Amino acid sequence: MKGDGKFVYLFNEAGKEMKNLLGGKGANLAEMTKIGIPVPPGFTITTDVCNLFNVLGMKYPDGLRSQVEDAVSVLEKKMGMIFGDPNNPLLLSVRSGARVSMPGMMDTVLNLGINEEVVRGLISRSDDERFAWDSYRRFIQMYGDVVLGLKPENKDDLDPFEIEIDRIKEEKGVELDTELTGQDLMELSIRFKSIIKRSLGIEFPDDPWEQLWGAVGAVFGSWNNDRAVKYRSLNDIPSEWGTAVNVQSMVFGNMGESCATGVAFTRDPATGERIFFGEYLTNAQGEDVVAGIRTPYQVTKEGSIRWAKSSNLDEGTRIRNSLSLEERMPAEYRELELAYEKLEDHYKDMQDIEFTIQNGKLWLLQTRTGKRTAAAAVKIAVDMVEEGSIDERTAVLRVLPSQLDQLLHPAFDINASRKVIAKGLPASPGASTGLVVFNAEDAEEWSEEGKKVILVRIETSPEDIGGMKSAEGILTARGGMTSHAAVVARGMGKCCVSGCGSLKIDYSKRTFEVDGNIITEGDWISIDGSTGEVMLGKIPTIPPKIGKDFSKLMSWADKFRRLGVRTNADTPEDAVTARKFGAEGIGLCRTEHMFFEGDRIKAMREMILSNDEAGRRKALDKLLPMQREDFEGIYRAMEGFPVTIRLLDPPLHEFLPHDRDAQEEIASDIGITLEEVIQRTASLSEFNPMLGHRGCRLGITYPEITEMQTRAIIEAACDLKKEGMEIIPEIMVPLIGTVKELELQKEIVNRIASEVMDHKKIEVDYLVGTMIEIPRAAITADEVAVYADFFSFGTNDLTQMCFGYSRDDSGSFLPEYVEKGILENDPFKVLDQTGVGQLVEIGTRKGRSIKNDLKVGICGEHGGEPRSIEFFHRIGLDYVSCSPYRVPIARLSAAHASLKEQ
Amino acid sequence: MKGDGKFVYLFNEAGKEMKNLLGGKGANLAEMTKIGIPVPPGFTITTDVCNLFNVLGMKYPDGLRSQVEDAVSVLEKKMGMIFGDPNNPLLLSVRSGARVSMPGMMDTVLNLGINEEVVRGLISRSDDERFAWDSYRRFIQMYGDVVLGLKPENKDDLDPFEIEIDRIKEEKGVELDTELTGQDLMELSIRFKSIIKRSLGIEFPDDPWEQLWGAVGAVFGSWNNDRAVKYRSLNDIPSEWGTAVNVQSMVFGNMGESCATGVAFTRDPATGERIFFGEYLTNAQGEDVVAGIRTPYQVTKEGSIRWAKSSNLDEGTRIRNSLSLEERMPAEYRELELAYEKLEDHYKDMQDIEFTIQNGKLWLLQTRTGKRTAAAAVKIAVDMVEEGSIDERTAVLRVLPSQLDQLLHPAFDINASRKVIAKGLPASPGASTGLVVFNAEDAEEWSEEGKKVILVRIETSPEDIGGMKSAEGILTARGGMTSHAAVVARGMGKCCVSGCGSLKIDYSKRTFEVDGNIITEGDWISIDGSTGEVMLGKIPTIPPKIGKDFSKLMSWADKFRRLGVRTNADTPEDAVTARKFGAEGIGLCRTEHMFFEGDRIKAMREMILSNDEAGRRKALDKLLPMQREDFEGIYRAMEGFPVTIRLLDPPLHEFLPHDRDAQEEIASDIGITLEEVIQRTASLSEFNPMLGHRGCRLGITYPEITEMQTRAIIEAACDLKKEGMEIIPEIMVPLIGTVKELELQKEIVNRIASEVMDHKKIEVDYLVGTMIEIPRAAITADEVAVYADFFSFGTNDLTQMCFGYSRDDSGSFLPEYVEKGILENDPFKVLDQTGVGQLVEIGTRKGRSIKNDLKVGICGEHGGEPRSIEFFHRIGLDYVSCSPYRVPIARLSAAHASLKEQ
Repeated sequence: MKGDGKFVYLFNEAGKEMKNLLGGKGANLAEMTKIGIPVPPGFTITTDVCNLFNVLGMKYPDGLRSQVEDAVSVLEKKMGMIFGDPNNPLLLSVRSGARVSMPGMMDTVLNLGINEEVVRGLISRSDDERFAWDSYRRFIQMYGDVVLGLKPENKDDLDPFEIEIDRIKEEKGVELDTELTGQDLMELSIRFKSIIKRSLGIEFPDDPWEQLWGAVGAVFGSWNNDRAVKYRSLNDIPSEWGTAVNVQSMVFGNMGESCATGVAFTRDPATGERIFFGEYLTNAQGEDVVAGIRTPYQVTKEGSIRWAKSSNLDEGTRIRNSLSLEERMPAEYRELELAYEKLEDHYKDMQDIEFTIQNGKLWLLQTRTGKRTAAAAVKIAVDMVEEGSIDERTAVLRVLPSQLDQLLHPAFDINASRKVIAKGLPASPGASTGLVVFNAEDAEEWSEEGKKVILVRIETSPEDIGGMKSAEGILTARGGMTSHAAVVARGMGKCCVSGCGSLKIDYSKRTFEVDGNIITEGDWISIDGSTGEVMLGKIPTIPPKIGKDFSKLMSWADKFRRLGVRTNADTPEDAVTARKFGAEGIGLCRTEHMFFEGDRIKAMREMILSNDEAGRRKALDKLLPMQREDFEGIYRAMEGFPVTIRLLDPPLHEFLPHDRDAQEEIASDIGITLEEVIQRTASLSEFNPMLGHRGCRLGITYPEITEMQTRAIIEAACDLKKEGMEIIPEIMVPLIGTVKELELQKEIVNRIASEVMDHKKIEVDYLVGTMIEIPRAAITADEVAVYADFFSFGTNDLTQMCFGYSRDDSGSFLPEYVEKGILENDPFKVLDQTGVGQLVEIGTRKGRSIKNDLKVGICGEHGGEPRSIEFFHRIGLDYVSCSPYRVPIARLSAAHASLKEQ
Repeated sequence: MKGDGKFVYLFNEAGKEMKNLLGGKGANLAEMTKIGIPVPPGFTITTDVCNLFNVLGMKYPDGLRSQVEDAVSVLEKKMGMIFGDPNNPLLLSVRSGARVSMPGMMDTVLNLGINEEVVRGLISRSDDERFAWDSYRRFIQMYGDVVLGLKPENKDDLDPFEIEIDRIKEEKGVELDTELTGQDLMELSIRFKSIIKRSLGIEFPDDPWEQLWGAVGAVFGSWNNDRAVKYRSLNDIPSEWGTAVNVQSMVFGNMGESCATGVAFTRDPATGERIFFGEYLTNAQGEDVVAGIRTPYQVTKEGSIRWAKSSNLDEGTRIRNSLSLEERMPAEYRELELAYEKLEDHYKDMQDIEFTIQNGKLWLLQTRTGKRTAAAAVKIAVDMVEEGSIDERTAVLRVLPSQLDQLLHPAFDINASRKVIAKGLPASPGASTGLVVFNAEDAEEWSEEGKKVILVRIETSPEDIGGMKSAEGILTARGGMTSHAAVVARGMGKCCVSGCGSLKIDYSKRTFEVDGNIITEGDWISIDGSTGEVMLGKIPTIPPKIGKDFSKLMSWADKFRRLGVRTNADTPEDAVTARKFGAEGIGLCRTEHMFFEGDRIKAMREMILSNDEAGRRKALDKLLPMQREDFEGIYRAMEGFPVTIRLLDPPLHEFLPHDRDAQEEIASDIGITLEEVIQRTASLSEFNPMLGHRGCRLGITYPEITEMQTRAIIEAACDLKKEGMEIIPEIMVPLIGTVKELELQKEIVNRIASEVMDHKKIEVDYLVGTMIEIPRAAITADEVAVYADFFSFGTNDLTQMCFGYSRDDSGSFLPEYVEKGILENDPFKVLDQTGVGQLVEIGTRKGRSIKNDLKVGICGEHGGEPRSIEFFHRIGLDYVSCSPYRVPIARLSAAHASLKEQ
């Protein structure tokens, strides 16, 4: 604690460097003030006071009162208003603000300094009785709750104030809060005060100063309430940090037609274009814009004209109904433009601004880094490097890997016919098609059943988050580009069309009507988040195109990353796609997928149904040329890059037919009896196939399979090398549990490879390595490494066996485990670093203890998951391998991991 | 290499302390000679010579020749025979003998010093033309193979000598080797010599000295052959050790009726009684006794009389047909008695002796520690302590834990009716009942199919080992107590009746006839290895009784062991049995077994089929009193010892019926539709139940199950404590993968326990711990330990998940894995120390890093397996828990582990 006795800092006396003393919020408001942004004047009571207050037994240190009084009088001067003066009342907000944002503490009291007398003063100034009384009853309710602590008796009971609101609505015969008149709200305020008297035995304070000290004390006291203490202990936050208290002048955008409020971005958050972009409402509160209750107007003239065009409004209608702020209040708009330039220049990033105009005076209430679509993030990052504002490293870190998914999502096929039935705002880009559902619960349920859904809502709220996540896309009838639906969808990288006002949604009938079309729950629709179009039916999609900015950003990412990025690809087509996305080889080519096509499955079944080696070899001979052809195609697509081919992995019964007809067919094809087919199928069935006869266990029991696959791999490589191509095959033995398995399989591979190369008279460099996917392989990796040219962690199986969870069966408890916090994430999506990650780390360390340059990669689902990739970087893997569409995500994640480490 | 130039040591010049210089065999022969045992004279050429020989490029050091010649002349004097003298020929054996026994080197050449002239001399002395020529042709064959190196051209071809034997048999029109006459064998010898001439281009050496130096050189040369070098490198044996060469006078037990050969034990190897016990044949070779081709006579008179009684022979017949050595050759017998006393006194353990009497002179060829039954091992160990010959530690180490199984095996119920059809020798104690099979392959196959078999053979040979292992018991028509069948069966702790001469076995018909009964393959028979009786049909068995000696030995074992030994018991009966065997508590009480009996399964099914918590609670209320009663019974049986109760573990679908009738019954019992039963059953079925919804995952999803079980556990404990009993419940949460699971389950247990104890007004000390059976639990044991009062490693599941092997399915590859040496043992039988053991070690270490006195045990199958127990001792576990019958094995293994460590 500093001893200089200065407990209070006006916003213009401090800056962002004083976060420890003033808390995050206080320091930021000071910073904005310092650079000349018109922030409503205010001051911060330091975190030192919080500590003193608690040490002194809930008493303030000497001198605080006079410092606060002095500060308030500075605010009065700046605002030209007097705290508690009914004729010209200054109202204040009081907010907590610790060094880090911390739930559990008292949050906010608004409109402080109000009482019945002040209300009457406000009415005479604003001419708006309802606004004034509503402000008062809200203050009583908020103050009664957070400062005086009037809570429902039981946790599950309704709030006593809300009960009273319901009661008065019933008495007045109205349904909505908004139908209550000024007089009703006055009555409600009086009733609120008597509830407080009755419940707490105290008079509600009318004195503004008493209100202020009460709120300040409540903030400091809340630092040590149970929830805050628990949160601190869970997050290792020292209790000595304390919280600051921010006291700020209230400004109102809803005091008449010379008032307005809005939200704006310094660049277009959807496209990243360097245009000022924002929405506002006149005579409104900030929440009105965000909540999407009224559809807001555009801030700029250009935006307004563009919007009118997309809504088919003529210029006259536009000017009448949807005039821009630029046109309506040109002076204030100019000020706003100046502010945003200053802010972007200062914070070196696109800003999301909240502003209010009160009687012609512009105030900025908040600035923060603006959320943006992936495309915008990429464009802004690249533009800012070119503008000289940030460097390449910063640019790379500005784009979240998890966001890229959005960029990489497919769009609608342009050639497909579209029946556009409505048009809304292009709130979050992308294309999605799905079955209509009308609430979040249904969205979640249907999608759990494997159905694709589009969530259609009048507007969304935070309760809908789960359903929004589950849905393919979101369509709302109300709300702008900054509405809840739009902001959340962009954050999720999910396609969204908002503010589609022509939709008439009937929740009870589970239909919506638009232009005479009636769409019912379960019907297919498609939405285009980049155009705002809503279409009937299911529309085919095409893969996304990668723009110039994207490529530039990716090339920077590649400069900074250490991890290699490969792809999991089983076909030449996948390989081509992945190479376009920047894959540097194939980390996992699953050969078994190749066996399912056409005639191959017949030969495969013949092999499995053979009773002896000779029969199996005969069938394998049929498969050999097909496999060789597969590998040729893949090699060509990946020329010059390594191609890791995994030998046959799944249990053989997966290839056999289980219905009678197919069994009869295969019996007659092969020339054995149906009974033999049934018997062999039964003998191959397993209680726990995941832990059964699969992986290299097949190659051990049937070495001829390994022989055939090796032959195909090496023959194809030799043939292409003769054409002058550079081919780098890496043969991967799956499901090793003991070193001996690898040793035996490697013997076979090497023997066949020599044979083939002798015969073809050409040498091909190839590696023989192994998947590490059995816990035992990881913990005995020092033994395994002796025979391995490389390791590739199969984190899917490793997760199954480390946890003892069958991926196919864990649905019965895993969602509950995540929900109850037993697991932080679904370990099949995000690598469990504590357990599975430990095995990866042990395996890597032990493997390298034997061969210190052992190449180690990972080819499970986690290879495309940003947090997991960061972990793989940290423990020193050489590469990750993931599905083609996730390759850019992996490249960017790898760069992030590398940059964060520095 | 010593430089003193002494390269040759006569047996009487050395002793067992010179093993490094003379090799194991040489040192032992010297030792026997030193203590005055009549060993055929001989000498050893030192291991130094081996090194010199190889360093000098296959040349002997100076002075060796004269030392060998001097030594041979000493042998000549001792034996009164001359090397190479046709009138009185001394024949020699030449054997290798390194510091440790080592396969791959040249083994033995017998009858060295023989040639055609010597043969004629032998004929004139022995009057046995056939014996003499057979000795010669055997020598040529042996020498040609091992010294001259005449091998078949291809590995898989027949031996050229064997081809010639087949040819001569065809020419002479005979089928068996034994049908060849002396003249035939002479002819064969000549042909053998010309084969050698033809193939190798050399004359077969007739000169005895040339033969001797050839054999010595072959032994030294074999030290560096491929197989020996490979064996050394695999077993870390330095090549500088070298091998010695042992040259010894040949003696013959087959040179007429004043010759004999036999095998004897210094105590009864079946019972351990301190009586001299042995079998012999006159005019025979050692192999004849062991091979069981002729049924041998008893060495002692007492033994002979006893044997005659058991075979219903009158004294006259006995004397005519089966006279003891004691009666037939009293002087030589006396000498033999003296020798065995000396040997036992010297080696302080029961000895297994090979002897030969040549023309009235006794020679001992070998002595070694005698194999014995478990009962004999116990009795001998305890007797020797009481005789003052060994101390208690040595006695404990003398009994192999793996042998005890035999002692603990059940015997036939005395009250059961027996239809004895034959009587053989009581070769290896125990009682077994099974289906008749006639060869080892069938024994293995049938037993793999889960059938119990008795292997019935005329005699057994080493090829039959696999089948003998698989069989419940072994019955042979020929061979004595020291026959192959008897010795091997005792080693395996397997019941065996040998030499049952009344059996007429027809392999081709797959039957045997005895006294007019025809028994066919697949018929049930029973054999009693303690009485030698063979009975028709299946006879019930009763548990074994534990004798006084056993208890004494066990009490010594308990003094030396550090590991605690508990039992896995699910019923009061099991608990009682285990306590009798010395269990110090229950380490695993599986509550689910209790749910299968009678009405319980109905209530259990009702619980599982309920759609909601209320329904489940109703069914659980029915189960509560039954569970409480179970625990009461178990507590009573284990009073004063801890009882570890595992909460419900298996997946719920295991409790549901799968056949239509039972499903209909349960539907009507519970009052739901059949469809609901079928649907619920289907919804519970899993692809990989081992990795599914089981263990604590059930308790997390259905906390009410944990509540009911806790209630039953604590209520029962409270009630019994009120009776004044000491009850120590330890509640074990199964299948923990994350600490949070344990935390949540422990919360429930503690809450219910408090409720129960408050209500019962009595406090019970209980612990809450967890199984460590998921790899993740082991590697995050430091987290888990925070909430665990104890750990118990479930090595069955841990093995499944560490290897990724389903125990139920691994039959398709695991046997092959063991056979191919991929795995040393079936990891479900013997703990895999490298992999699974590492997890146990990591888990223990991490757990104790948090709580340094954390109690750690193990309750998988491995808790009763000696090698695994030694490992658990070494890594510092507190206890093992195993099935009741294995408790003594665990106690003894724990003592061994402890003593070996010291």
